[in-house]
Amino acid sequence: MMTRIAVAGCTGYAGGEILRLLLGRDDIEVGALTAKSSAGSRLGEHQQHLTPLHDRVVLDTTAENLAGHDVVFLALPHGASAEVAAQLGDDVLVIDAGADFRLESAEEWQRFYGTEHAGTWPYGLPELPGQRDVLAGTKRIAVPGCFPTTVTLALAPALQAGLVDGDDVVVVAPTGPSGAGKSLKAHLLGSELMGSASAYGVGGVHRHVPEMLQNFRKLGASAPTVSFTPVLVPMSRGILATVTAPLAGPTTAEAVRAAYAAAWADEPFVHLLPEGLWPQTQSVVGSNHVHVQVAVDAAANRLVAVAALDNLTKGTAGGAVQSMNLALGLSETLGLTTLGVAP
Amino acid sequence: MMTRIAVAGCTGYAGGEILRLLLGRDDIEVGALTAKSSAGSRLGEHQQHLTPLHDRVVLDTTAENLAGHDVVFLALPHGASAEVAAQLGDDVLVIDAGADFRLESAEEWQRFYGTEHAGTWPYGLPELPGQRDVLAGTKRIAVPGCFPTTVTLALAPALQAGLVDGDDVVVVAPTGPSGAGKSLKAHLLGSELMGSASAYGVGGVHRHVPEMLQNFRKLGASAPTVSFTPVLVPMSRGILATVTAPLAGPTTAEAVRAAYAAAWADEPFVHLLPEGLWPQTQSVVGSNHVHVQVAVDAAANRLVAVAALDNLTKGTAGGAVQSMNLALGLSETLGLTTLGVAP
Amino acid sequence: MMTRIAVAGCTGYAGGEILRLLLGRDDIEVGALTAKSSAGSRLGEHQQHLTPLHDRVVLDTTAENLAGHDVVFLALPHGASAEVAAQLGDDVLVIDAGADFRLESAEEWQRFYGTEHAGTWPYGLPELPGQRDVLAGTKRIAVPGCFPTTVTLALAPALQAGLVDGDDVVVVAPTGPSGAGKSLKAHLLGSELMGSASAYGVGGVHRHVPEMLQNFRKLGASAPTVSFTPVLVPMSRGILATVTAPLAGPTTAEAVRAAYAAAWADEPFVHLLPEGLWPQTQSVVGSNHVHVQVAVDAAANRLVAVAALDNLTKGTAGGAVQSMNLALGLSETLGLTTLGVAP
Amino acid sequence: MMTRIAVAGCTGYAGGEILRLLLGRDDIEVGALTAKSSAGSRLGEHQQHLTPLHDRVVLDTTAENLAGHDVVFLALPHGASAEVAAQLGDDVLVIDAGADFRLESAEEWQRFYGTEHAGTWPYGLPELPGQRDVLAGTKRIAVPGCFPTTVTLALAPALQAGLVDGDDVVVVAPTGPSGAGKSLKAHLLGSELMGSASAYGVGGVHRHVPEMLQNFRKLGASAPTVSFTPVLVPMSRGILATVTAPLAGPTTAEAVRAAYAAAWADEPFVHLLPEGLWPQTQSVVGSNHVHVQVAVDAAANRLVAVAALDNLTKGTAGGAVQSMNLALGLSETLGLTTLGVAP
Repeated sequence: MMTRIAVAGCTGYAGGEILRLLLGRDDIEVGALTAKSSAGSRLGEHQQHLTPLHDRVVLDTTAENLAGHDVVFLALPHGASAEVAAQLGDDVLVIDAGADFRLESAEEWQRFYGTEHAGTWPYGLPELPGQRDVLAGTKRIAVPGCFPTTVTLALAPALQAGLVDGDDVVVVAPTGPSGAGKSLKAHLLGSELMGSASAYGVGGVHRHVPEMLQNFRKLGASAPTVSFTPVLVPMSRGILATVTAPLAGPTTAEAVRAAYAAAWADEPFVHLLPEGLWPQTQSVVGSNHVHVQVAVDAAANRLVAVAALDNLTKGTAGGAVQSMNLALGLSETLGLTTLGVAP
Repeated sequence: MMTRIAVAGCTGYAGGEILRLLLGRDDIEVGALTAKSSAGSRLGEHQQHLTPLHDRVVLDTTAENLAGHDVVFLALPHGASAEVAAQLGDDVLVIDAGADFRLESAEEWQRFYGTEHAGTWPYGLPELPGQRDVLAGTKRIAVPGCFPTTVTLALAPALQAGLVDGDDVVVVAPTGPSGAGKSLKAHLLGSELMGSASAYGVGGVHRHVPEMLQNFRKLGASAPTVSFTPVLVPMSRGILATVTAPLAGPTTAEAVRAAYAAAWADEPFVHLLPEGLWPQTQSVVGSNHVHVQVAVDAAANRLVAVAALDNLTKGTAGGAVQSMNLALGLSETLGLTTLGVAP
Repeated sequence: MMTRIAVAGCTGYAGGEILRLLLGRDDIEVGALTAKSSAGSRLGEHQQHLTPLHDRVVLDTTAENLAGHDVVFLALPHGASAEVAAQLGDDVLVIDAGADFRLESAEEWQRFYGTEHAGTWPYGLPELPGQRDVLAGTKRIAVPGCFPTTVTLALAPALQAGLVDGDDVVVVAPTGPSGAGKSLKAHLLGSELMGSASAYGVGGVHRHVPEMLQNFRKLGASAPTVSFTPVLVPMSRGILATVTAPLAGPTTAEAVRAAYAAAWADEPFVHLLPEGLWPQTQSVVGSNHVHVQVAVDAAANRLVAVAALDNLTKGTAGGAVQSMNLALGLSETLGLTTLGVAP
Repeated sequence: MMTRIAVAGCTGYAGGEILRLLLGRDDIEVGALTAKSSAGSRLGEHQQHLTPLHDRVVLDTTAENLAGHDVVFLALPHGASAEVAAQLGDDVLVIDAGADFRLESAEEWQRFYGTEHAGTWPYGLPELPGQRDVLAGTKRIAVPGCFPTTVTLALAPALQAGLVDGDDVVVVAPTGPSGAGKSLKAHLLGSELMGSASAYGVGGVHRHVPEMLQNFRKLGASAPTVSFTPVLVPMSRGILATVTAPLAGPTTAEAVRAAYAAAWADEPFVHLLPEGLWPQTQSVVGSNHVHVQVAVDAAANRLVAVAALDNLTKGTAGGAVQSMNLALGLSETLGLTTLGVAP
């Protein structure tokens, strides 16, 4: 059975990655490709790697153009998703790669985004407990943010096993600029980024902070806090999150490792690395896989977990396709088995 | 039907890429993985991205360990391939990713490699005229060098159409260091390469020169010459070859474009880009695809063709798998349909 | 004696580099810093590395603001320089880092730039024969383009010694994006550039082509042609030009090397590398130095010269300061002695 | 007055940077350049950017060769420094860029380095309180580690002002591979590093941990702890440390900023950035400068300081020269005024 999909925001990085992943499948038919300012141009001008779609004309992002598809992916700036989604039928699977429907708290939405809360959709992180049941058959999916996905997968086994209780978590996460999209901003120019590392969104102001805390609470934390600092580094893709949290009590490296091994043993995309190996983003680039390693720093009384993923794949488009597969009743890993492009 | 494969040289970049491509297939069974100095270690230490094979023990590269497979890939330094190949049966498909069996001229081999010529095997570049027939059913394949593949695909349509005659070709090709393998040499250190471009093998001494000329002759050139300069630039993978040649006679941009469009129209992996777009390696990284564009510089009386490919995929491992597919009578594109990982 | 300088276009990369070089000097007083769209902002927002000037308010680029200085640097888009320059007094040393006054041929200007020719100023490449005399005491300097500087210094000794005659020159030059300035264009985004090499301006259309030919003629070529292809690679700064030209007659590697050694022996900034070493941009980044090496490819009958420089330093701002020193009667190397920042 | 210097370990990155900085000075005479395995080769083969020293023959690292200099820089692996230093006279200024003489605690040395403690020399971080007096006239200097320098300068004002008390400090610091030297190790190859971020030395095992704690104690911390994670990212040089610590009591962003402004107001090399700007390594590359910014994360109850420096300059060779200047009674900033090479 063919599934007919549309992508709103097809000229950006998230839209491009959704298409790259789906073009490898023979059960997917690529329908409408829409955008705002680029409507009327050829897709090849924007997505040079997507040769099969080079001659496709980009349509305007309207309800009419998006109608008649089984699945509509929204790869739009926050705010825009909610507006488009409101015009799409309840029988269509709508998958929002943006932020609009991630947060459950209208108050936190208002505080971090400054606009009215659009609502909350089923959260597309199948690795959360019980979440596969939530996603099965759903018609609405909010794709998690790239940093919350990384951090949550890094810390989940420790939270669930009670090794940490989620207060005073500290996260620093080098990442590439593709997460910021194809925005024409001076600090995203190659000249500014190459050969340089720079912090941004420092001091608790990054919009992914409330989403991390929401996930920590789902995993058992009662009053979590997180100090989160993202760092731009010279690579297009990838997040390498170092996540540390105070140990809830005496433990050993073996016990911590065992908890992680047990938690991720059956996950198709999350891998605890063999002892002695630490995650590197190169190993997961272009793939839906996540690599995790964990240590105990006894002197600092902290657990240190490190996770690597590709912000555009597992962090956005791959996560979206994984959740789509679940929502459509397909094999969860369909079209997502490629390994990372290393070196 | 399952095909059982072995990889000699599994710890290097070419070996790793062969495995990455084949791990996505359900018709391939991964058999022996061998190496020299790393025998006895776990593959995960060398190929962190290949999670399904993390616990595999690397065997020694011996005829015994490589016996009993349908296909044996040799990803070894030149010289070593010939020695191992001599011990493998005639009924096994042996695919040499090294240089040993590429050159037809024993004299040129001797001049550029300084050792005795091992012989000549069917050349694994299916895009050459008549080459698919040569590869069908063969039991020996010499995988082309990464630069000759790039340059040949950039110039073939012009040579075949008589637009250029192959004399005084000039090629300059920025590339990443992965083509040099995992050699522990100071000039391949990250500190030396990042933020820097550097020429090497300048002045006609690079070992890929005679292979380029051999291909030009196959495409109709009677007395070709090539000035070839490779340039190391800060990216792990990719080759971006600028190939210029004197025009054989008056022509137009349209005529040249038409020749290229006709030549590559039915090729699954070689794509002439839409007018106005020029190849970028990012668009083909991790894929078996090649992007080509061509221009006429009337003032300089030269045709200028630019081609981009991934040296480890189409330039080595992908080309090897493509040729394997043909030799085994499978669909040529099996396992190779992924598009480039951009951005 | 203090020299009071102004910079028009202080927020861009060329303007920033001029200031970086001059801030190290105690004979320079930094006067007006002007720009167009950023007037009114603090310089620190645009040039984070220039700490001593962080609090300086950027002024509007007007004749009033630029009045009262000994030297005015113009780091403006082409076209804009001519307009500003027309309003500055004859007694002020005006140094144009842009293209407006480089070309002698109004016809070529018109063909490549499409606007009216503004005129021709003394050309700021002191390494050309007799050029130091031209620059001594001048009040107008046209700073050469970054590619013409690289290519001219790579080929000059061969042209002057008659080893090549300048016809059928082929140049391919990987470079970083800083040469394109701080323009907000999608293809200059870090996500597009990192991990990728891409050709642009292919086929004889790059605006630096007529300037190269003009220099070749000054060095004795009667009817030069050049096929020039610039390639964007993932580094902020640097040009690595491979310049090949047909040999004018039989020669030897030793004779060619001797010609280069003789030509550059007394130059403070151009260095022929020891035999066996090839230029790398890292070795000259942040410096006014140029590294050159040369080979003879007998089979291809071509001389191959490779030159590396920093496009923002020797290629723009350093070259500008070097010429300023000559114009003011100062030591040519003043403030320019720093070596490249390697690794 | 000329100062005659020698460098032991002249072929490595630290040795090269010391020479690069000193070659710009007219009060320095470069004497013996020594190394172990490269003795007998020309320096140009190892330090291509140091053109004035290309023809220098590298001598063996012996007491004889190092005798007769005013200053001897040791840029050697730990362990080796102590051995050489023991053979140098008390009247010579010996500056160890290695780790041997940094730690005061023999026990911590033994625990982290596994060898016998060589002793403790005056610590070359002039920005520590009272340290300039310690360094004035000294004949022995232990250059601080690159990470401890960064982290100490990021946190010092907060510790001194009592805003934090130094317990539960968490540091994550992306850096380039040049800090690891020119070691031929697979994980330092360009292919492994480009396009990738990877953690190493995780869980409290990095050898710079005890040095950080030693500095925190000097700044008033009674029982400091630090969770430290270095991260390799794709740039040759630079450290961007995010340093967070629990607030000791209620405070405001203004109060914290004021403390930093006061602490660093008179320092020539440490700069608190204007509000709204965050450090980027590009702005300090090739320079002895350090950029710092600080925020209060009220929700997480943590101070977050970010510091950027060049690990080879202020983090090693620049710091060494700065301390040398003090020891010799010269101006502290002599030869170190260059600003960072951005973009």
